[in-house]
Amino acid sequence: MLLENVLPFWLQYGFDRTHGGVYTGLDRNGALLETDKSVWFQGRALWVYATAYRQMERRPEYQELCDSLVSFIENHCFDPSDGRMYFRLSQEGKPVVKRIRYVFSEMFAILGFAAYSRAFDRPEYAKKAYALFKKVEGYLNEPGILIPKFERESKGFGLPMILLNTVSELREALPEKSEELTRAIDGYIKEIEIFFVRPELKVVVEQCNPDGTLQLDHFEGRLLNPGHAIEGAWFVLTEAQKRGGDAELMHLGTTMLDWMFARGWDEDYGGIIYYRDALGKSATEYWHDMKFWWPQCEAAIANLLAYSMSGKQEYLHQFEQVDKYIKTHFLDEEHGEWFGYLHRDNSLSTPLKGTMYKGPFHIPRMYLVACEILDGLRQ
Amino acid sequence: MLLENVLPFWLQYGFDRTHGGVYTGLDRNGALLETDKSVWFQGRALWVYATAYRQMERRPEYQELCDSLVSFIENHCFDPSDGRMYFRLSQEGKPVVKRIRYVFSEMFAILGFAAYSRAFDRPEYAKKAYALFKKVEGYLNEPGILIPKFERESKGFGLPMILLNTVSELREALPEKSEELTRAIDGYIKEIEIFFVRPELKVVVEQCNPDGTLQLDHFEGRLLNPGHAIEGAWFVLTEAQKRGGDAELMHLGTTMLDWMFARGWDEDYGGIIYYRDALGKSATEYWHDMKFWWPQCEAAIANLLAYSMSGKQEYLHQFEQVDKYIKTHFLDEEHGEWFGYLHRDNSLSTPLKGTMYKGPFHIPRMYLVACEILDGLRQ
Repeated sequence: MLLENVLPFWLQYGFDRTHGGVYTGLDRNGALLETDKSVWFQGRALWVYATAYRQMERRPEYQELCDSLVSFIENHCFDPSDGRMYFRLSQEGKPVVKRIRYVFSEMFAILGFAAYSRAFDRPEYAKKAYALFKKVEGYLNEPGILIPKFERESKGFGLPMILLNTVSELREALPEKSEELTRAIDGYIKEIEIFFVRPELKVVVEQCNPDGTLQLDHFEGRLLNPGHAIEGAWFVLTEAQKRGGDAELMHLGTTMLDWMFARGWDEDYGGIIYYRDALGKSATEYWHDMKFWWPQCEAAIANLLAYSMSGKQEYLHQFEQVDKYIKTHFLDEEHGEWFGYLHRDNSLSTPLKGTMYKGPFHIPRMYLVACEILDGLRQ
Repeated sequence: MLLENVLPFWLQYGFDRTHGGVYTGLDRNGALLETDKSVWFQGRALWVYATAYRQMERRPEYQELCDSLVSFIENHCFDPSDGRMYFRLSQEGKPVVKRIRYVFSEMFAILGFAAYSRAFDRPEYAKKAYALFKKVEGYLNEPGILIPKFERESKGFGLPMILLNTVSELREALPEKSEELTRAIDGYIKEIEIFFVRPELKVVVEQCNPDGTLQLDHFEGRLLNPGHAIEGAWFVLTEAQKRGGDAELMHLGTTMLDWMFARGWDEDYGGIIYYRDALGKSATEYWHDMKFWWPQCEAAIANLLAYSMSGKQEYLHQFEQVDKYIKTHFLDEEHGEWFGYLHRDNSLSTPLKGTMYKGPFHIPRMYLVACEILDGLRQ
């Protein structure tokens, strides 16, 4: 599936051999719907194809795409005026959208550079990834750079969760910084545990007050994103595994998975629902009950990893449930790759294959991570 | 429906007699889901209740709410540091979100002040509305104040369309500025006609290049919002009516309605669909096919007005179609008011009554405008 379907789809239709980099705005059959490029996906695709090259097969077309992505990122994705990264560029690499509140473009570039360094033995890219990480740390610590959307101070789960994964990948590429980066990871996990994993409701919240109290009077404070929390769960489990099966981290990761799989799984139609309300009140977000591709990917990985680490049959059963759901509803047998957006009842909302948010990342990552887990189980 | 159901619903559950102003984050039964307040809706509710007071019935509770809204707006909704308006406040009126790209908060305050001035004979509020309009004009003309989301320069339909309605309401409250404001309105209509009403595709687009060329290679350039275009259509028709049935404006308004009703009406399940693609390509926005309450309101008004002005049976037929659709799917017989968010097949997505975007505006406005049109037809 990965090597014969997903990776070739984006190579064939997404790779822009003229201007470099990758398009993601593709229709069901791969036809180009949007000529602009996502900055996130230049970094994300770089992570995917570099990791596939290192882990699966050394195909020259992966290397060709990776080289192109690196050039495109370095030549076009940074704003020379302040060094911050853009969000969206024209096909030639001219700026279209820059988002000043977030550092996700930077995070995915770090991921990509780190993977590129490992796959093609280019240590200077591990150093570039590290330098970019230190820049991001600076943005996060210096007030006034990332202007928050809300004037009411809040803490978000998304930041420590994505940092956990990014820094973990960076550490693999840069063993000499292992100690410093592990300390940083300890901090992210502590933050997740203290602020967002909430035993009083048995949920992982997305947002809370800076003093740790919940924001139950507010739409955003009650919002649960089960796929996102489950993604965080397997980031924690991965760290537990890297620490030789650390019991505390293992407990934290499986708790997050248990609570949020229970909240997210749709008993009526199957699949992980996009949003839930922590108190079970009426949903705020009108598309709350859709089924997106990526929460299913995260639920598959998290359950397989939890099974491989704990041996508990319930995780294997849940993995099989998710896997069957994906195969029944998301795979596009006719044109390859997966659909991205289903209604709650699993009917198709839009058949397109990519947007500024869907591209070569969650799906190939699921296969790459799952292959590693299965290799481990076979040993 | 208006006087016995919709207006009382927000008076009973939304009006915050403690801190002033109106909440909109209400559950199906009126229970408070969100204690923050929408700045848009302080102005919008003011327009609604002031207009109901002037046009329908002089109920003291309408006046009480209007006075409270005016105080809340003047005391809390403006940022003292730069005079710009906020987007969202806490219940006590502390800033929560300020949006720097838009002037919609200001537009709705102008609408509200103008209606308040007319309803309660407070000419100083017509002057305040005018002063705020001149401030908005300044923001729009001075580069660097409203930082656009896209670095690729674009023109949007939303701005001249909302200005057309706002300035038209302001003119009613301020006859001495009639000439100046009519010239401004001429400009907005010209802009709509030249840039957004596109005979080559028979559509009203939401966005185009500054030179008037279409952006057909981009998601946003192909995006159609039929409810929004139909709302614009009745703004144009209203101006045609005020000019004694101006034939050119009448033609423009009915053309916009004809094209976009044809694009928007869902032949399978009824109702106006949220988004369409100008070239019929796969939708980008994953919730594109939902049915929201407000496009139905706009389609009802536009068809009724077009019928009253043209006498053409097809508009009456379309009005009846929309009216029946609303009554079948949107009215909440049990708890009053309307649902807001249905799936494409008209099943309920979320039963809540209000958000930061749904509150006392489109629905009561529909009844208020429809009453005026029906009065005209009876004469």
